[in-house]
Amino acid sequence: MEDRECRLKTLLLRVRDLGLGYDSEETVLFKYCGGGCPRSRTNHDLTLARLLQKSDLPSLLEEKVFGEPCCRPTHYEDVAFLDDSHHWHTVEKLSASSCGCIG
Amino acid sequence: MEDRECRLKTLLLRVRDLGLGYDSEETVLFKYCGGGCPRSRTNHDLTLARLLQKSDLPSLLEEKVFGEPCCRPTHYEDVAFLDDSHHWHTVEKLSASSCGCIG
Repeated sequence: MEDRECRLKTLLLRVRDLGLGYDSEETVLFKYCGGGCPRSRTNHDLTLARLLQKSDLPSLLEEKVFGEPCCRPTHYEDVAFLDDSHHWHTVEKLSASSCGCIG
Repeated sequence: MEDRECRLKTLLLRVRDLGLGYDSEETVLFKYCGGGCPRSRTNHDLTLARLLQKSDLPSLLEEKVFGEPCCRPTHYEDVAFLDDSHHWHTVEKLSASSCGCIG
């Protein structure tokens, strides 16, 4: 269960797979936040979570409704890399540097 | 599309369906937040959203990862009701009163 809680995770990605339009064979460390925030649930969240489990309220499932705070970055860091033409690029706030249960 | 954006929504619920353990035939207005936050995406979010769409990273789908800020309550309000024994109860911060794209 511990592993499912909100924390910083890492992926090694090729720059071209970032989807930001840069031609580069370099790889960068991309950090992001993932996991649940069940310990931060309020009365409101407990009720929402219960409603989401009930099958007779299908509209809730179609909407984007979260029954607990979200695990999201609380700080970001820039990522720099060389493109195929040997120019440096810096993408601001591309990678997460810390995570928290927000909202 | 407008309808899919983060906003306050309402449900009329029986108190017993709130799941908080109260015996009451009363109904209360339960307000919650739902919808997406695509306008608030950063470089980090655009990259995450692209990775989530790719099928070769199944681990991202198993984790709880959000590619945009979450639509969550920014303010709450108390809800009061009579139980079946004619006693008043107030549940603090049970209902949302405003929503925002957070994180």
